[in-house]
Amino acid sequence: MADSMYAVRKLRPAPGLEYAQTEVPKPGDGEILIKAKACSMCGTDIHIYNWDPPWSQGRFIPPKTLGHEVNGEVIEIGKEVQGFAVGDSISAESHIPDWTCSLCKQGSMHICEQLKFFSIDTNGFFAPYAVLPASNAWKNPRNMKPEIATLKESMGNSVYTVGEGKVAGKNVAILGLGPTGLFAVGIAKVLGAAKVICVGGTETHRAIAKQMGADVIVNRHEEDAAKRVLEETDGKGPDTVLEMSGAVAAIQQSVDIVRPTGIVCVLGLPTQPVTLDIAKKIVLKDVTFRGIYGRKMWDTWKVTSGLLDNGKLDITPIITHRLKLSEFEQGIAAMQADQCGKVVMFPDEY
Amino acid sequence: MADSMYAVRKLRPAPGLEYAQTEVPKPGDGEILIKAKACSMCGTDIHIYNWDPPWSQGRFIPPKTLGHEVNGEVIEIGKEVQGFAVGDSISAESHIPDWTCSLCKQGSMHICEQLKFFSIDTNGFFAPYAVLPASNAWKNPRNMKPEIATLKESMGNSVYTVGEGKVAGKNVAILGLGPTGLFAVGIAKVLGAAKVICVGGTETHRAIAKQMGADVIVNRHEEDAAKRVLEETDGKGPDTVLEMSGAVAAIQQSVDIVRPTGIVCVLGLPTQPVTLDIAKKIVLKDVTFRGIYGRKMWDTWKVTSGLLDNGKLDITPIITHRLKLSEFEQGIAAMQADQCGKVVMFPDEY
Amino acid sequence: MADSMYAVRKLRPAPGLEYAQTEVPKPGDGEILIKAKACSMCGTDIHIYNWDPPWSQGRFIPPKTLGHEVNGEVIEIGKEVQGFAVGDSISAESHIPDWTCSLCKQGSMHICEQLKFFSIDTNGFFAPYAVLPASNAWKNPRNMKPEIATLKESMGNSVYTVGEGKVAGKNVAILGLGPTGLFAVGIAKVLGAAKVICVGGTETHRAIAKQMGADVIVNRHEEDAAKRVLEETDGKGPDTVLEMSGAVAAIQQSVDIVRPTGIVCVLGLPTQPVTLDIAKKIVLKDVTFRGIYGRKMWDTWKVTSGLLDNGKLDITPIITHRLKLSEFEQGIAAMQADQCGKVVMFPDEY
Amino acid sequence: MADSMYAVRKLRPAPGLEYAQTEVPKPGDGEILIKAKACSMCGTDIHIYNWDPPWSQGRFIPPKTLGHEVNGEVIEIGKEVQGFAVGDSISAESHIPDWTCSLCKQGSMHICEQLKFFSIDTNGFFAPYAVLPASNAWKNPRNMKPEIATLKESMGNSVYTVGEGKVAGKNVAILGLGPTGLFAVGIAKVLGAAKVICVGGTETHRAIAKQMGADVIVNRHEEDAAKRVLEETDGKGPDTVLEMSGAVAAIQQSVDIVRPTGIVCVLGLPTQPVTLDIAKKIVLKDVTFRGIYGRKMWDTWKVTSGLLDNGKLDITPIITHRLKLSEFEQGIAAMQADQCGKVVMFPDEY
Repeated sequence: MADSMYAVRKLRPAPGLEYAQTEVPKPGDGEILIKAKACSMCGTDIHIYNWDPPWSQGRFIPPKTLGHEVNGEVIEIGKEVQGFAVGDSISAESHIPDWTCSLCKQGSMHICEQLKFFSIDTNGFFAPYAVLPASNAWKNPRNMKPEIATLKESMGNSVYTVGEGKVAGKNVAILGLGPTGLFAVGIAKVLGAAKVICVGGTETHRAIAKQMGADVIVNRHEEDAAKRVLEETDGKGPDTVLEMSGAVAAIQQSVDIVRPTGIVCVLGLPTQPVTLDIAKKIVLKDVTFRGIYGRKMWDTWKVTSGLLDNGKLDITPIITHRLKLSEFEQGIAAMQADQCGKVVMFPDEY
Repeated sequence: MADSMYAVRKLRPAPGLEYAQTEVPKPGDGEILIKAKACSMCGTDIHIYNWDPPWSQGRFIPPKTLGHEVNGEVIEIGKEVQGFAVGDSISAESHIPDWTCSLCKQGSMHICEQLKFFSIDTNGFFAPYAVLPASNAWKNPRNMKPEIATLKESMGNSVYTVGEGKVAGKNVAILGLGPTGLFAVGIAKVLGAAKVICVGGTETHRAIAKQMGADVIVNRHEEDAAKRVLEETDGKGPDTVLEMSGAVAAIQQSVDIVRPTGIVCVLGLPTQPVTLDIAKKIVLKDVTFRGIYGRKMWDTWKVTSGLLDNGKLDITPIITHRLKLSEFEQGIAAMQADQCGKVVMFPDEY
Repeated sequence: MADSMYAVRKLRPAPGLEYAQTEVPKPGDGEILIKAKACSMCGTDIHIYNWDPPWSQGRFIPPKTLGHEVNGEVIEIGKEVQGFAVGDSISAESHIPDWTCSLCKQGSMHICEQLKFFSIDTNGFFAPYAVLPASNAWKNPRNMKPEIATLKESMGNSVYTVGEGKVAGKNVAILGLGPTGLFAVGIAKVLGAAKVICVGGTETHRAIAKQMGADVIVNRHEEDAAKRVLEETDGKGPDTVLEMSGAVAAIQQSVDIVRPTGIVCVLGLPTQPVTLDIAKKIVLKDVTFRGIYGRKMWDTWKVTSGLLDNGKLDITPIITHRLKLSEFEQGIAAMQADQCGKVVMFPDEY
Repeated sequence: MADSMYAVRKLRPAPGLEYAQTEVPKPGDGEILIKAKACSMCGTDIHIYNWDPPWSQGRFIPPKTLGHEVNGEVIEIGKEVQGFAVGDSISAESHIPDWTCSLCKQGSMHICEQLKFFSIDTNGFFAPYAVLPASNAWKNPRNMKPEIATLKESMGNSVYTVGEGKVAGKNVAILGLGPTGLFAVGIAKVLGAAKVICVGGTETHRAIAKQMGADVIVNRHEEDAAKRVLEETDGKGPDTVLEMSGAVAAIQQSVDIVRPTGIVCVLGLPTQPVTLDIAKKIVLKDVTFRGIYGRKMWDTWKVTSGLLDNGKLDITPIITHRLKLSEFEQGIAAMQADQCGKVVMFPDEY
């Protein structure tokens, strides 16, 4: 193993990323070193690429390797590590908890008071080698396809969202068909939703939703989405609405259409405050409006793995781009154009 | 038993109510006739008294007897009625479901698609005698005090709210100390809340909250309520916030102060749309924001009765007015002045 | 419509049933008259056919029409009935609650203290026409296939069982492949079980389990079922065990194999007491052992319909016999031989 | 701080314990050193004292300091420890998980596949000084009374048991009034149980149960406990039964008396297999029979602390013995005689 490697890094506080040389890290106490097999892009990476104020500029301190979704093979194990062996296939939980704050001590490590993130508080995973705390690693079957295993983190958000929506035997509307919405389509179907009605704006996204098994796909540019969802649910409204877009109008629509006693789960992040008719749409309808953050450690990972490890749910249609790390700019461009599912990258060579 | 009686009725589509003569009703098939022992006032009654547009004017058709909270003794039983006997003490669920719509058929009778209400769709209970469907009657211990038994319906809203707040061992903030907030204080305490911090604006209300066992009582006119709640919870925020006021500012505050992964239950009805920073205050905090309507039939009644029937929870401090039916104007005035807990009325004579 | 019809009836307190003439019933208050489209056999019918002591001989009083699973079209509606129209397709909940006892008043109508059953406390459904209380009828899509709609009641037991087993993303073992076990296989698969391992003794049953999507099918006559289930779950044991056989040995096995913190749901009815190592197998494993009775009214029906109404789950493979009512003896024989899935019967002619 | 100290230790594989000299331990990486303020005895300690086969003789390897319930003040902090400071008051979770097995990775650390215990796999806490992994420490308010803080671990078992029994507003029977039963009485009361009926055999225990707020206390030597529990619940049976005795007869009784749809939580450990009429008492009653092991990390601790930290629940009556460490034989004798609540010990001097 060489001492240095090429990784996708942000070197300066300015837009852009570089495929640059850096050191191969060594595992410290409690850490493992992995040889990356695949990594994948998330919207957060785009914000950092773009150097968007205020969050990216305020939070990210260059130079650092980007990326927080990864699959790799364990090749070296630090001291004090239990439960992992060289050769294990692992995926990474991107949230690094302190395990001691009051939220961790109630079992909510995913929203720890002192949360750190890979690629923001540490170097990330768009690299051939990476280290991570063993306490953030999830073991996969050794023969799992890397392009699937790297997506467990990202799909986990949707698994948590669909799970809180209690979809078994219910009618479900999914608003927004970016990657989290597309995962949600497939997850809702395999968790027993009676009817999955999804609403998207992009042809690419709608085509993937169809492959993922959506029962009804609404093009919000061509028809009144709320009206259509009501028609598809005998005028009653869906039992569950999963809001995956972050659009203010979609959040408002979610409480309009949900049936009384229904559940609205919101994973999308609106960039502005949202005005809601709380009396009529939430209180008088006895509705649960649930914000969703991250993934439960490790309940969500267990369910995610239950769906993926034996091939029960095929998420391959959501992977629209397979690139070498050195081709990362193609992935950034596809995501900026909102014309993709997930972008998976593979190390060029070791 | 006479053929006629005096009841508190609205005879004309205009402000006010009258203590007027009307017929003693007869129980139809599936109905029971009760001799009222006590009845109680709710905010809805005040809206109808005031003849507030648009709801009261649009929904209420005079002439009708007002009131939907009652305790009485069964004195006559219609055909097809099972499970009730003359002499039973009953309280009434005010929501009359059709038992056949899709919401009823999922066990959500309390929010039936064709919901009817006593005093709006039928004659109400501010009268010495009343009929109701046996399917809306809840049986009490025969020796239960009427002034307590009439409050089961009203307290039930708060029992449902506190129950959804999962307060056992948790820190709880209660915003608003009208009757539903005051009930919530007592209920949260007996259901094991670690610390109950309540916020009110009226001296009368705060004094009752103290009697109901509140650990901390904040006068929102004198101090920054949000700041104080945070101080009282080591800067973490309460695990559960119960929003009982309906004030827009309080609803906004509820999501400000609740700790990550916490629960906000909203029973208060804001009269205007509410603008919330959903991304920061709900999604990124993994918060559940739960609208509450009515009471579950009959889960909520079972818990309410579990707390009241054997005197485990004493709600007497919340009863600030005991009046004869003919003195109803005193109760209306007290409620309009927002200077009371619950107003209970007793029939003058039979 | 004629005044009389031929139905499958028990006329005398002795083994056997007869295809005998009887009156076409009239709907009373609160009742509906249906023209049966299909009905189906249950193990209870066999006990009554066989005239098994003590239950059948003690509980059944001839003469009565047998059968409690049915689908029919509403052709006449009694007084006081809301929510149903002539032409509706309905299935029947076989448990007739009194709606007023303390169990009904906590929402557990399915286990009412005064429970009555079709075909035992009333005439049943193995007939061209039948009456039932509207409050026991569930409305289906009008075009639903009768042979599927009649199975909602029976499948409901399994939906309730699987639902309590919380199978999403989990490994599930199903012990016993009679009709309830076969339904459970299909339900567990569509509700997201990661791996469904089922154990059966009959070739017919195992073949159907395969069609229903079981991942692993164990022939308990040929291999050590407990050992195999452990192997199929990496030696950990399944997260959930569904005991559908009622065999004493299978119940003991269920707590042997379930993993710590797992759930065992028992729908099977053992005919003798069962000895369990409660300390080691339940307490020290933090295990939930859940008896299941009937179906929730109406939560279970909603989920069942969510899975069947739009064809999400195909239960056709479970129907092994399609007979005319007059051919009922063939169905009895198949069930006595334990060589069938569900036996569906159709009226000969009207 | 001296290098050596006196502790209650088992030095040889034989009955008995000794107050013997041993080294003061040093905190390793990830560990903290505490100065003990109080520790408490558990039934496990008695099994080890007695040198009971097979468990004690098979599992315990002398020499080792006994004890797994403790409160102490942090006086030294090892490397890699976050979230603790010198001067903190801590209680210890006695189960040491590996944090990496499949049960830990589903959030069930309390029943880790590689579970270790203080005093069995390590030195225990009947000593003036002790070390423990920071990941097993729970922080208390600094002014908390040591005799209360040491009981959090032990009381946690009962908090978990009562919590799973969902007692709010329900009738609860508690079978067995050893320390776990006595804690359960107090917990059930403060979590809103309508009526707590408890059954015990020892005068000392019944007297404490009364102080803890039991509504009904049955002496099982003097009356038919099952009959009495039914009478006290209007012949319906309790909604929840908490089995805290481990007696075979009590476990059988628990499913006899629980009402249909009720919950039986079993914390008691029977020493022999138990024969149950599973068909009639569990399946046909739709009953949940729940084994309880340990305490959830850390949900249970949060609730326990919510009840104790601010004095909401006073468990002082359960402490029947306060001894110096050197007087430990008195505590052993009291527990062997089954004539005590909890035995708390304090270091003699430092």
